[in-house]
Amino acid sequence: MRILGIDPGLRITGYALLHAPNPSDFSSTPRIIEAGVIRLRPPTNPDTPPAHSIADRLLELERDLAAIIERLAPDLAAVEAVFAHTNHPATAITMGHARGVVLLTLRRAALNLAELKPAEVKKALTGSGRATKDQMQRAVQTLFALPTPPEPPDVADAIAIALGACRRTALETPQP
Amino acid sequence: MRILGIDPGLRITGYALLHAPNPSDFSSTPRIIEAGVIRLRPPTNPDTPPAHSIADRLLELERDLAAIIERLAPDLAAVEAVFAHTNHPATAITMGHARGVVLLTLRRAALNLAELKPAEVKKALTGSGRATKDQMQRAVQTLFALPTPPEPPDVADAIAIALGACRRTALETPQP
Repeated sequence: MRILGIDPGLRITGYALLHAPNPSDFSSTPRIIEAGVIRLRPPTNPDTPPAHSIADRLLELERDLAAIIERLAPDLAAVEAVFAHTNHPATAITMGHARGVVLLTLRRAALNLAELKPAEVKKALTGSGRATKDQMQRAVQTLFALPTPPEPPDVADAIAIALGACRRTALETPQP
Repeated sequence: MRILGIDPGLRITGYALLHAPNPSDFSSTPRIIEAGVIRLRPPTNPDTPPAHSIADRLLELERDLAAIIERLAPDLAAVEAVFAHTNHPATAITMGHARGVVLLTLRRAALNLAELKPAEVKKALTGSGRATKDQMQRAVQTLFALPTPPEPPDVADAIAIALGACRRTALETPQP
């Protein structure tokens, strides 16, 4: 099973494709096929109105994500559930723009979506629903035996989201 | 000049096309060519995960808005600037999803975007930047000589946004 994890953002969107040959086997770690970020460029002209600049970045996000979906051919896509208790409403709305375009692009590719609560993602990776960002990054490094923690953190987040979806699938798959 | 005003939402998105034969003439009220809403259906299956249901509504929003743009052939599209000081972060994120898809669809149609602050929209319509929702609806009714206030309020909002963009264009257009 190929699971695409996405961490949407309007400057950086992290993505990771995990391959779990046997999703019902909890003892095996899935393999990272590819992980990276889509970086969205701010406007070159500083006088560009915000809506214009956001819209242009959304077009780029859609195009790049559609290309990634086509290249990586996932069976399932996973995103985090919206985290309501944010202290930064403006950031939250902006992030919502990117998340909307991500959901649209995933569904246009007829992908099934898994939505995971942040605590579920943290627990799947570290055993604790309250892990810090730093703990998450180090857990990704250890579990997947990477030489360094994934940079930027958005990559680690996308890997963690995909892993969470993989573990949930394992729980839902009947044992042989 | 044909100006399309949009008030994005994940349940109801208001839209209105105004035609201003002479945008630099402040004394003439533009004509409403068409105004209405795109209603997005909640999922028929109550067990549909939120991300799935949101994504399906975003696909519908994109399709319906693209058809409206093609039919109405606007010269300019107008949206409200993001209002940061919201007390409902979850609603704000959800609205952000719809706004993102609206901006994407407008720019894919190569439309120029005008972004107006809520106070600018209110002022263009009522003369006061602090008008209430009810005052806005009645002002739209009066100005455009409508038999009743537009319903739902999202229609009046879209008309007001388009009018605000029209008035701003008038200010920016050299007088003959």
